[in-house]
Amino acid sequence: MKLLYPTSLVLDIQNLKGFSVTLHPYDVKIPIPEELIDAEIMVTWTNTPENLKDAAKRMKNLRWIQSLAAGPNDVLAGGFDPHKTTITTGSGLHDIPVAEHTLGLLLTAARRFDQMRDYQLQNKWPGHLGGSFPRNDFTTLRDARVLIWGFGNIAKTLAPYLIALGSQVRGVARQPGVRNGIEVYGEDKLAELLPQTDALVMILPGSETTRDALNAERLKLLPKHAWVVNVGRGLSVDEDALVDALEKGEIGGAALDVFKTEPLPESSRLWKAPNMIISPHAAGGRPLGCTDLIAENLRRFLAEQPLKNTISN
Amino acid sequence: MKLLYPTSLVLDIQNLKGFSVTLHPYDVKIPIPEELIDAEIMVTWTNTPENLKDAAKRMKNLRWIQSLAAGPNDVLAGGFDPHKTTITTGSGLHDIPVAEHTLGLLLTAARRFDQMRDYQLQNKWPGHLGGSFPRNDFTTLRDARVLIWGFGNIAKTLAPYLIALGSQVRGVARQPGVRNGIEVYGEDKLAELLPQTDALVMILPGSETTRDALNAERLKLLPKHAWVVNVGRGLSVDEDALVDALEKGEIGGAALDVFKTEPLPESSRLWKAPNMIISPHAAGGRPLGCTDLIAENLRRFLAEQPLKNTISN
Repeated sequence: MKLLYPTSLVLDIQNLKGFSVTLHPYDVKIPIPEELIDAEIMVTWTNTPENLKDAAKRMKNLRWIQSLAAGPNDVLAGGFDPHKTTITTGSGLHDIPVAEHTLGLLLTAARRFDQMRDYQLQNKWPGHLGGSFPRNDFTTLRDARVLIWGFGNIAKTLAPYLIALGSQVRGVARQPGVRNGIEVYGEDKLAELLPQTDALVMILPGSETTRDALNAERLKLLPKHAWVVNVGRGLSVDEDALVDALEKGEIGGAALDVFKTEPLPESSRLWKAPNMIISPHAAGGRPLGCTDLIAENLRRFLAEQPLKNTISN
Repeated sequence: MKLLYPTSLVLDIQNLKGFSVTLHPYDVKIPIPEELIDAEIMVTWTNTPENLKDAAKRMKNLRWIQSLAAGPNDVLAGGFDPHKTTITTGSGLHDIPVAEHTLGLLLTAARRFDQMRDYQLQNKWPGHLGGSFPRNDFTTLRDARVLIWGFGNIAKTLAPYLIALGSQVRGVARQPGVRNGIEVYGEDKLAELLPQTDALVMILPGSETTRDALNAERLKLLPKHAWVVNVGRGLSVDEDALVDALEKGEIGGAALDVFKTEPLPESSRLWKAPNMIISPHAAGGRPLGCTDLIAENLRRFLAEQPLKNTISN
C-alpha cells in the first residue's frame, strides 16, 4: 500500500514508519507521476488546483486523502467525492500558529511596530513612540479589555496567552456559556460589550450568516481608541464601513489578516487607510503536529477504525 | 507638607489621598513655580535636565524624590545629593511593559510584520510571507529555543509569556542557578548554549563589564537562522559586528530597542542592515503601578520607615 506525502512542507517522516505502507514524496505542483498513480493514501498541502483535479481523475485506487489544511475546500473543489474517498482535514493543526499570529498583530497595534517601520525606512528615530504616554489609549495588553468574537479552538488557544499578559478576556459566540474559564456571551449582548472593548478580535467562520457581522452600526459602538483584529474570514467585516471608521478616526485602528478578496487588489482602499495593518492571510500556513495526526489516522485506517477530522459526506 | 507630581503621565491621584500631604501637579519641562518651591516631596518622570538642575538648586526643603524611571541617572545628573535628599527609583514599574515589548519584537521577527509593512506601503500582497513554510527557520515561538542573557526581573516577567507560547526558555547570568523554574547558566556556558539558540534575548545592564558582550566571536556561534533581540543596554552589543553578521547572512536578523548612541544617528549603518528591526528605546516608558509605589513609599516616609527602591548613597 502506497502513501504519498507532499514535499511542500517539512514533515518528519520518521514518525510515519512502522506501518505496512510504503512512503513516497511527491511534488504538489505537477501531476502525480505514473508510478505513484495507484496509491491508496495521499496527504495534501498547498496542492495546485490542477494537481488535485488531475489526481481526482487518475487515482482510481485512492481510498483516503489527509489534507493538512484546516478545511476541505481545495480537495472538494478538485473533484474528489467524499462518498468514494474518505477525506480528513488538518483541523487543529493551525490553532496555535493562528493564535500566535493574532497575538503578534495585537502587540504590533499596541506598540505601533508598523509606525516604527515607516520611520526606520527613512533613517528617522520616532522618539514619540517611546517615552512618556500621557494617554488612555490601547498601548499595552496589560489590563486591556479584549473581546474575542467567535469562540472556537483558536480563541481557546489565544485566551491563555492574553491572560498571561494580563488582559481581561471575554468572548462572544452564538452559544453563550463559560468555555475554558472564559465568560462567553451571546451575540445579543454585543451592544453592551462593544463599548467596553479596547481590542476586538474577530475569529468568525465564513458563511452567509456572518457576512458583514462587523458593520458600520457596530463599529460606532466601539470606543475611539479601540482596535479591530480579524483573523477569521474577510467576509465577516464590512470593509468599506471599516475604512470609513478609520478615516473619520472613529476607532483606533485595524489589523487584518483576511479580506473579502484575496490577494487584496492593489486598488483597495484598505492598503492606505490610516492606522491599518495588513497581513497577507499569513496567520496559519504553518501546521504543527502534522505527522502525529497522520500517524494516528494511518493507524486507524489500517485498523479500519473511524478517522479523526473526517468530513461528513 | 507638599508633594509635587508630574503631569507628564496620567496618574490616578485618588490613590494618593488620605495622607497628611497636599498634592500639587507640576510641568516637568519648565522651572518649578515659586509657590511650589518649598515642597518636601517631588515625583519625577521625564523631567528635562534643566528642570532638574534648577530644582536641585532652588528646592531647599526637598527631602525625598520619587523617580518613576527604572534608574536614578537623570536625577543624579541634575545635581541632587543622595546624602541630603532620599532618592527612590521606579525599579519594577517597567518590568511588565519591557517584557511585553520584547515579546512583540520576537513575534515581529518570527512573523515578519516588518516585511509585511514594506509591502503594504506599496499596495502589494506578500503572499510568500504566509502559506507554506518548507523551512527550518525561526518562524514561530512554539518550540523555539529562546536564550535570555541577563536574568533579572524583566527576564522573570518575560519567561512565563514565552512558556505559555511553547518556547524552550533558558537563561544566562553571572550567577547560575534555577530562577522561577528557569535553568540559568553561567556565562562560561555561552559557547555551548549559543549554537543551540533560535532567539537570543539580551537584557544586560549597562556597565563597562558588559561592553560588547555580544561580539563578532559570539555572533558566529549562533545558528544562521537565529535572531538577536536587545532590550537591555546598547552598550552590550558590538553594533559593527552585528551589522557585518547581518550583511553576510551569518544570523537570521536582529531587533534592537537600545543603541550605543540614542537617538540613533541618521547616518548609522544599523537603519538599513538586512533583517534589522529598529525600535526607538520604546520598550519601557509606560510605568505601571506608579501610584501604588508612591502611596506605599509615602506611607513609609510619613512613618519614618525605610523607603522601597532607595538608592544607596
